[in-house]
Parts: sequence; C-alpha cells; structure tokens
Amino acid sequence: MAKKQTTPGKTGTDRRTTRTGSEAAVTTKKIESLAEMVIAAAARKKDPNFDIPIRALSNVRFDPKRAIIEMGGATQSRHFFDKSMAKKFMQTLLIAAQCKTLIEENKTASIRSLYYLAKHDVAGTKEKTFNDQEESDPIIEDLEVCIDTLREELHVYASNRGNLVGPITLVDDGNTLDCMKMGSAGYPVPSIVEPGVVQFKKCTAKYILHVEKDTVWRRFYEDRYHEKHHCVVTHGGGQPARGMRRLLRRMHDELKLPVYCLLDNDPWGYYIYSVIKQGSINLAYESQRMAVPQAVFIGVSSFDYERCGLSDDVKIGLNDQDVKRAKQILSYPWFKGKRDWEREIRKMMQNGFKMEVEALLNKRLTYLTGEYVPMKIKDRKQWLD
Amino acid sequence: MAKKQTTPGKTGTDRRTTRTGSEAAVTTKKIESLAEMVIAAAARKKDPNFDIPIRALSNVRFDPKRAIIEMGGATQSRHFFDKSMAKKFMQTLLIAAQCKTLIEENKTASIRSLYYLAKHDVAGTKEKTFNDQEESDPIIEDLEVCIDTLREELHVYASNRGNLVGPITLVDDGNTLDCMKMGSAGYPVPSIVEPGVVQFKKCTAKYILHVEKDTVWRRFYEDRYHEKHHCVVTHGGGQPARGMRRLLRRMHDELKLPVYCLLDNDPWGYYIYSVIKQGSINLAYESQRMAVPQAVFIGVSSFDYERCGLSDDVKIGLNDQDVKRAKQILSYPWFKGKRDWEREIRKMMQNGFKMEVEALLNKRLTYLTGEYVPMKIKDRKQWLD
Repeated sequence: MAKKQTTPGKTGTDRRTTRTGSEAAVTTKKIESLAEMVIAAAARKKDPNFDIPIRALSNVRFDPKRAIIEMGGATQSRHFFDKSMAKKFMQTLLIAAQCKTLIEENKTASIRSLYYLAKHDVAGTKEKTFNDQEESDPIIEDLEVCIDTLREELHVYASNRGNLVGPITLVDDGNTLDCMKMGSAGYPVPSIVEPGVVQFKKCTAKYILHVEKDTVWRRFYEDRYHEKHHCVVTHGGGQPARGMRRLLRRMHDELKLPVYCLLDNDPWGYYIYSVIKQGSINLAYESQRMAVPQAVFIGVSSFDYERCGLSDDVKIGLNDQDVKRAKQILSYPWFKGKRDWEREIRKMMQNGFKMEVEALLNKRLTYLTGEYVPMKIKDRKQWLD
Repeated sequence: MAKKQTTPGKTGTDRRTTRTGSEAAVTTKKIESLAEMVIAAAARKKDPNFDIPIRALSNVRFDPKRAIIEMGGATQSRHFFDKSMAKKFMQTLLIAAQCKTLIEENKTASIRSLYYLAKHDVAGTKEKTFNDQEESDPIIEDLEVCIDTLREELHVYASNRGNLVGPITLVDDGNTLDCMKMGSAGYPVPSIVEPGVVQFKKCTAKYILHVEKDTVWRRFYEDRYHEKHHCVVTHGGGQPARGMRRLLRRMHDELKLPVYCLLDNDPWGYYIYSVIKQGSINLAYESQRMAVPQAVFIGVSSFDYERCGLSDDVKIGLNDQDVKRAKQILSYPWFKGKRDWEREIRKMMQNGFKMEVEALLNKRLTYLTGEYVPMKIKDRKQWLD
C-alpha cells in the first residue's frame, strides 16, 4: 500500500456557519417544494398529498453490483382528506417546518428536542400534535426519504459516539485538529460530519482500522499502533452511530483509505461489519451515503482459534440466541452465497463458542497490536470480504 | 463570581510516560508490601492472610461533616489455609501481580482485559483461575480498598465517557489542548485523568455546568454558552463514569471551580446529582477522591413547572418505579433532613409527573441556554444543595 498524501480543497469555514450555504439552500428548497405542492393542491381545491417511499423489509433489496442495501421504488401516498392519514400528514408538515426553521437559524436539534419543539395543542382541540417521541421519530425518517435528504441535512442530530486517532488533520466547526495530538481519548467524532462541518485538510494514513469498543481502541492507542503503522484507528462504541459511519464513508471515498474491521467473533460482530459495509435494513435509504462496500473483516475469525493457537481460556459458549442470530445472518442475501462467509459462520456454530477481541490478550498484552493485527492486515487470504 | 486565572505548576510530561514515576512507585510499593506479608507468614510457617475492608451497605456511612459517603472500619480477614477463602486469596494475589506488571511496563488494561490476562489453568488441575469476569471485578475492588489505592493507580481503566468544552487548557498524555477549540464534540474525557496523565495548564472559567446527556451538551455548545458565560460545560453521557467524576473533582479542587448540575427532574436525575456530590454506595471508598460535596443542583426542579410557566407538553407521568425510587432517595441520609430536598422530591410526587431538561425547549429553542440556566445560576435561592 502506497503512502498517501491527500489535501482536499476546502479546508476552512466560519465557525458560526456550521453548514455551507449551498447545502442548506438545497435542503430548504426541497422542503419548500413539498409545501408548494400542498399549497398548489389546496388552491385547486384538490386533496393535498405527497408520496413517501415505503420503509419496510418488503421494499428493501440488496444490489449485488453496488454491494449495498437499497430501498425499492414502492411508495405510499399520504393524503390530507383521509381520516386515517390526516394526522400523519399534519405531523410531516410540522416536522418539515421545524427543520426549515433550524436550517434557516443555523441551529441543530436532537430527535428528542425536535419532538418537544413540534409538540403543542392542535388549535381548537385538546389533542396534541404528537403524543410521544415514537410518533415523531418515524416522521423524521419519512421526511428524509420523501425529499431525499439525510437527517444531518435537516439539522437533526443523533448521539456523538466514537473516537479516532491517527495521522489526519481535519477541520471541525472551524477548529483545525491534528488527530495525532488529541490526548488519550483521541478525536471525538460528532454526530454531524457533513462537509459543511468537517473538512479533511491533510492525511498521510495508509488505512483505517475500525474496532468495536473503546476499551479495545485504548489498547491500540496506548501501544501507538497508529504511529507504528501510519493508520487511523476508530471505534464506534458498539454499533457505530450515524456520525461514525458517515465519517468512515467520507474518509474512504475522499481520502481513498481502505477500511479494515476488527470485531468480536460473534453474530453481533458480524452484524456490525455488515452495517458498516452494506448498510442496515431499517435505514436502507442511507446506504448510498453511509455504507462502505469495500470494507473488509479481518477478524476475529472462527478459524483463529486453531490458526493462532489460542488457549481455551478465550472460549465463550454460544447460547440459543447466538445460534438463532447466526442462522439469520447466514440467510441475508449479502452473506448468502459468499463461500468464505458461509464457512466462517458455520465454523463458529461448529466450534460452539464465540471469542472477543480482548480475549486475544490472554496470550500476552502485546499480542493483539504487535502480532495478530499486523499479520491479519498483511495476509489477504485471511480477509473476509 | 470573580474571574479566575489559574496556572498550576506541572504542565508537561513525556508522552510515553503516562504516569508520574512517584505515583507508580507508591502503588508498586503497596502491592509489594502485600506480597511481603504473605511471604513473611509463609516463612514463619503461619497461615498467610490479609485484611480487606468490607464493601457492603452495612459498612457504609454518611459523614455529615465532610458530606460524603464513606466506608466504615469493618474488615474481613482473607486466609490462605481456609477452603472457603483459598481461591479468592489466590485470585487477589494474581490480580495484584498483573497490576504490578502493568504499572512496571507503563501499560493500562480494561477490567475485561485484566480478566483475560489473569485467566489460566491452575497448575496441575483442570480448574481455571477465574471462570468469568464476575469473579475478577470484585477482586479488583477488594485490592483497591485493601491497599488503599484507586483503580486508575492500578492501571486499570473503565470506559472513556463524557465530553467538555470551555476556557481551560490542559495537557493530556503530553498533548496541550485548548478546550475552546476541540471541534463540535469538545474534549473527550478519558477514563484515567490522574495527574500523571492530565495536567491543568490555564483556566479562565468561572464555573462548571454539568449536564446529563450529550444531546443537551450539544445545545449549549451550539449556542456558545461556554463563550458567553466563561464556563466549562461537561456531560457524562448519563451516570458519569469514573473519569468524568474524578475530573470534576480535580477541577473543583485545583482550579476552585464551583460545580452546577443541570439534570432531569426525575429520580434518576436526583441520583446522578447525589453520586457526583456524595459518591455512590457501591464505591463508597472512592468518595474521598471523586465526590464534590459542594456541587449544587440548579434544575430541573419540580417547582419550575409553575415558576417558569411551562406548558403541559413537558409532562411525563410518573410510573410506579419512579415513585418507589423517589421514596428510596428520600430515605437516604444525605437527602433526609434537608428541608429543600424533601420539599423538592415531595413536590415531584405531588405533581405526578417528571420533566426532562430537553422539554424546556418546548418554549423555544433558545430558552434553555438563553434564559433558564442564566436565571438559575444567578438566583441562589433556587439552588438545591
């Protein structure tokens, strides 16, 4: 792998303007178009309505060529003059209006805040616009797919989760940050990492190593793996949040960095990998901007027990739930038919046990960062793709 | 409140030496003394044993003068020549030996890693030294109290959790960090913030505002509250982890910063406050180095519904669990007898509802940071102490 020196164009931003004007203008325009359709229908004395793509397993498909999970073309029309839809129709426009205000005021809000911002009495009634957050969350997703935008572009944020260390200098909210010098918890990945907020300035990393948990990340940090191997080490604190997934995708696309995943040898680890690589079923519409179809799983593999001569101290027996989940994963179209993956998952069930990344430390404290991962990165034959 | 300019002495450290030599030497000495006691007994052909303070509610007391939860003096002797104690005796020495190695190699490990590091076959048997982490975790705590040290001094880490923004410059693992310029997720507080890792360099903050969740923290960050009010804003991602608690304590002690807590108006919010202020029951022995007895609760108070003219959109009905928990909290010696707190908790039960910090945004997006908190900080009469 050649050492890369990448200096993308845009490097600075006014700290107060956390979104670029053009990005915001596009999203605002989309919301306005939605509203104009409604107004036009009303002016013609017609039933105002709009189409919302269906977010359900029935409308999700795996595109083997692009290697991501995508939404199908099925939509549902949401009408105002329909008792069963009128409330959701109103809620969609309320959320859209709130998002438009957020964008115009250059503010962001959490999904919980958005719920409180949009909650009030329906004029002339004792009814509330929203009874709880379970009503407003799906509406945000409806709006995303309806006007083809990402939640982040609607100025709605999830949790900040995940950290990063490595030879990359980026600008976050106007602050230039050298991610080699961010202290012992690294650079904390924010919830919104769109180009208006986070720009890449300089990067000499050769690849990204993504690990599952912060406790494992800390092992790599402390052993200066990122220094010795000129790479970026990230963790997502379990299932990576949207910010981390989007950042992995952007670093992969814009900085041409390969992504290697080091996850537990269990169904949960496989699933985290598949979400990073193909996207999730629930949020299939985001895959095209979040998924990293070229991501590679380097371990822990079911074959590593014998391959690496591990002791039985690392074994954790599979429970019924694990076996059930493994079979489910095996049936996903993006695993099914991949011979290596079928072997891998079947071997885990044959083993009858799972293994955590941290278990490899049982050999010695330096085994993971000093031997195991370098060996895995070097030997393509051990990769699961 | 006067503006403070604090420049503590120690400001730099060799990045590779994450602990100061003297700190490490003291802890190593304590572990060695433990081992020497055992060796001396064995040499005298006596039953080797050591005393471990009892970590149970029965041995916890609230010191009203120091205003922290403390451990009592009760101890239990752990003998080697006792079938019921021999395994735990061995486990204690195994964990102590592992920690000594970590300290000597200047490495740290998570509690999970420590379990794997210490797990192996007991020589000549088919038994394991530890069967699962539930066996090793309490042994770490035993060791902490036995030799009067903190987990962090044994080089054992918990999770990195919590973030901070504000006019403070600190050195973390040799990197000088201006916490006003750390990007949109702020400075991530690491698990270990002992003086050997984190030193304070410069601070012009007037106080610390601690909030519960990162979504609320982000509201303050985005509204530049820390700039406008010259303060540090922290969040713990729920119940604050050890690193955040210890950092709050150190900033309070060394930089003389008052700590104001803004938490949800529910039993969980009260409890988070009490842990920051007095320490937790489970880890009572840490209170003297983690608790901030002068911390103040500024809201959300049960009286704010009327006081601030909130709409009924903010109400979340109390469930049975909430009522039970509220009564329990009311009976804790550190709440009992404090008239203001008794009024506060009783009022919540009378209200029949709880309120989240984010619910205040229902008024308007800027209400929380622009009006509510400044009003609360100004008016001492609204503080709960």
